[in-house]
Amino acid sequence: MKCVVELYGKDLITTQEWSREELDVTLEFAKELKRKYYARKLEPLLKDKTFFMLFYNTSTRTRASFEAAMTALGGHAQFIDIATTRAGEGEQVKDIARMYERYGHGLGIRILESAVGYVYGRGNSVIREYAKHCRIPVVNMADDMYHPCQGLADILTVQEKFPHYEGKRYVIMWAYSNKVRSWGSVQEEALIMSRYGLDVTIAAPKGFELDPKIMETCEQNARESGSEFEITDDLRGALSGAHIVFPRNWASHACVMQGMDKFGKENEIKLHDRYRDWMLNRDLVELMDKKAIITHVLPVFRGEEATDEVMDGPHSVIYDQAENRLHVQMAALSLIM
Amino acid sequence: MKCVVELYGKDLITTQEWSREELDVTLEFAKELKRKYYARKLEPLLKDKTFFMLFYNTSTRTRASFEAAMTALGGHAQFIDIATTRAGEGEQVKDIARMYERYGHGLGIRILESAVGYVYGRGNSVIREYAKHCRIPVVNMADDMYHPCQGLADILTVQEKFPHYEGKRYVIMWAYSNKVRSWGSVQEEALIMSRYGLDVTIAAPKGFELDPKIMETCEQNARESGSEFEITDDLRGALSGAHIVFPRNWASHACVMQGMDKFGKENEIKLHDRYRDWMLNRDLVELMDKKAIITHVLPVFRGEEATDEVMDGPHSVIYDQAENRLHVQMAALSLIM
Amino acid sequence: MKCVVELYGKDLITTQEWSREELDVTLEFAKELKRKYYARKLEPLLKDKTFFMLFYNTSTRTRASFEAAMTALGGHAQFIDIATTRAGEGEQVKDIARMYERYGHGLGIRILESAVGYVYGRGNSVIREYAKHCRIPVVNMADDMYHPCQGLADILTVQEKFPHYEGKRYVIMWAYSNKVRSWGSVQEEALIMSRYGLDVTIAAPKGFELDPKIMETCEQNARESGSEFEITDDLRGALSGAHIVFPRNWASHACVMQGMDKFGKENEIKLHDRYRDWMLNRDLVELMDKKAIITHVLPVFRGEEATDEVMDGPHSVIYDQAENRLHVQMAALSLIM
Repeated sequence: MKCVVELYGKDLITTQEWSREELDVTLEFAKELKRKYYARKLEPLLKDKTFFMLFYNTSTRTRASFEAAMTALGGHAQFIDIATTRAGEGEQVKDIARMYERYGHGLGIRILESAVGYVYGRGNSVIREYAKHCRIPVVNMADDMYHPCQGLADILTVQEKFPHYEGKRYVIMWAYSNKVRSWGSVQEEALIMSRYGLDVTIAAPKGFELDPKIMETCEQNARESGSEFEITDDLRGALSGAHIVFPRNWASHACVMQGMDKFGKENEIKLHDRYRDWMLNRDLVELMDKKAIITHVLPVFRGEEATDEVMDGPHSVIYDQAENRLHVQMAALSLIM
Repeated sequence: MKCVVELYGKDLITTQEWSREELDVTLEFAKELKRKYYARKLEPLLKDKTFFMLFYNTSTRTRASFEAAMTALGGHAQFIDIATTRAGEGEQVKDIARMYERYGHGLGIRILESAVGYVYGRGNSVIREYAKHCRIPVVNMADDMYHPCQGLADILTVQEKFPHYEGKRYVIMWAYSNKVRSWGSVQEEALIMSRYGLDVTIAAPKGFELDPKIMETCEQNARESGSEFEITDDLRGALSGAHIVFPRNWASHACVMQGMDKFGKENEIKLHDRYRDWMLNRDLVELMDKKAIITHVLPVFRGEEATDEVMDGPHSVIYDQAENRLHVQMAALSLIM
Repeated sequence: MKCVVELYGKDLITTQEWSREELDVTLEFAKELKRKYYARKLEPLLKDKTFFMLFYNTSTRTRASFEAAMTALGGHAQFIDIATTRAGEGEQVKDIARMYERYGHGLGIRILESAVGYVYGRGNSVIREYAKHCRIPVVNMADDMYHPCQGLADILTVQEKFPHYEGKRYVIMWAYSNKVRSWGSVQEEALIMSRYGLDVTIAAPKGFELDPKIMETCEQNARESGSEFEITDDLRGALSGAHIVFPRNWASHACVMQGMDKFGKENEIKLHDRYRDWMLNRDLVELMDKKAIITHVLPVFRGEEATDEVMDGPHSVIYDQAENRLHVQMAALSLIM
């Protein structure tokens, strides 16, 4: 029970910074809340409490699911588009953080690379700056490094689909798209899956390496959980016999390190165009285990990252996975606020 | 009672697609909720439920009244400006629809002609696309063809003002304005009023004909309800002895068929300028029945569609009518969600 | 008890238009609600009620604190960015006001000088126009003349920090910034502080005089409360022995009278640049009473209006003051709605 108590007031910036016990409590509680949600027996755990959601970037699922989570538990989430505030006028993060602290019970922030001039890690630093000054818990609603609530939803989905998930093979597959995507989700996935004892393989063309420090942490996670962590550009090899695949586009290493403005979006798209065949299709899925599942954090770019056939096919669990955002967020918010 | 059961989960895209019994149940329930609202005795029928409101276009009344309706019944409506989402990045409607399905209990959508490149009917198709993929009920919050909640509010207003409303003469009057308006509201009015047995006359200058298929449906409605349906350009004749008038500007037939971009806004305004005398004023109101009422879906363009004198005068019921949006929406949302 | 009854339905446009008894009741109630907020014992005084917040300008604190206040009391505040409505299409204020009246229980409006072409007082007139047509109470959430909820929060803060606040010396200090600020907050402060018997001094360089009619009212307030009201350009003299200082930038008199567009932002900034030394720093604070407090309505421009050292130092009460916005707004909204 110790860890439940410790969660009250705790920031959620990446799942890696929560103990395995804290994550387990959250996931078990998410399962309980999910049953109660279906049974229409949820209690108003966050009655009349306020969760501020500060969006430096647009959002579809994250906003909808956090706001619905607060409503479902009797509280309210304020959707705050940063453009509707005076934050751009030169007020310091410290003063904004202390203000939200005084008006509510939790502060969520989304800040991706485009909002911070494409300097890798700067979005995450801004969130840490808020967290430093603010005594209410701060929740990372996706930044340029991490996406903890996505990670929680995804491990919950894996647990639901594979009761014996340890040792299952999880492939994070770089996939083609001309919409260049962030590293946050894939890095969070690699971290949490390696922590929970899945064998994680990142399959990507050369040049699409992720953050080396986070990769190191994944290796460490794997060692501790007794699983394997591998990086390869052999897609077919990676998928052979695998149990889970997440086909997702992300920016090249050089682009992220130099920043999109400097690297040039056209150059980056040209680079992606060389790997148009990295699209998840039936042939590739047939290499996998018969009971394999296909996941995605959404939005999925159909016809680019994956075919309609596989995303709408029997292996796809993308909507169940999306739904789990609601449940893990109800759990995490209840525990920290 | 059968129809109440059938309403649970039902989409509301146009009142024409609901049975007369379903509409009656909704209107009777709206009257009950209105009394309870005044008595401060509303029950939390939508306790902690979420209604998503997806706005492709701006809104004043629709947003305010839907969000207030959810609040009044203990739930919450999320106001979602499409520009704050990632919908523009190429995610398919199917995936967005399935996501909202998993996070809440109903999905409202407003999408007018300007959001779909002025191709008539395309806004309505988008709503039907959401409805097709989404197991929670979809509510049309105004599109380029229909506006069902406006229709419900307006027949409720007519019922309140004329306990014996059948056979009353209802004139939808094209009125001058240089702000070119959609067809949705007037078409919905014509449909529901003809269905409820009012004698509907559409009075408009030549060239301002509405959707011929919907006009045909109105004729059919009139035949079934034993009323008259007429289209004329004789405004004074139409108003003589009429009981209700709705003075409203709308785009010309050619403009809607070709699309504003192709037809040219300047051309359209020039066309409207030829009918500056189509403004509801005291002289015209005096042609009507002594107990006649003036309605409007708002915004009304004063000094264009109608004079201040008549809109603020004793025949005007525009604010009572606006208020009824709240009550019919409380009813409809309670029944379908 | 008479005044409590009178507050139901009452507009709050400036504290000057509420009686001293009405303000006292509100402040006492705010203190009670603050205790209950901390004890988690708030009652749902505004259960399922709607407060509309219409923003012609951006906002950080005002939006967050009003929305949190409604949530804390069981109701809901709709955040309405005017750009998401159809208000720009030519609908009259009368019709918008009457509509909100029918859908909810209170209407807040923020409208600063930039939204009204920099014609001094026009923002306030728009709010009065809404109030004239609307039977639900209208709350000024900051305009170009007044900011009543800020005034309430600030006198509450003074009362908390100085149980014997009468006769304490309150300095409103013009302070340097190149972000040219409104007059609303400082004028509201001068009004309410002089009313509550504090000796108010406005210290500003020549050319930064505020609204002469409001200054006259402050003098009248001071006469009635037995306090002093003074305007000076001797900053050090003003601060010597003072108990409270509010260091705040505001626009020059000529700029406000002519309007920023005509006067020129560059010219105004040049004017401010001549007074870069009007920054609150430790030397100036040391002139004050040993128990002096530093207040600010926020955002504070650090390094311009005041040094980090003093804003983060032991005299600063800016976060407590910000928090009081929540409590006075819970009180005022409960009493008027």
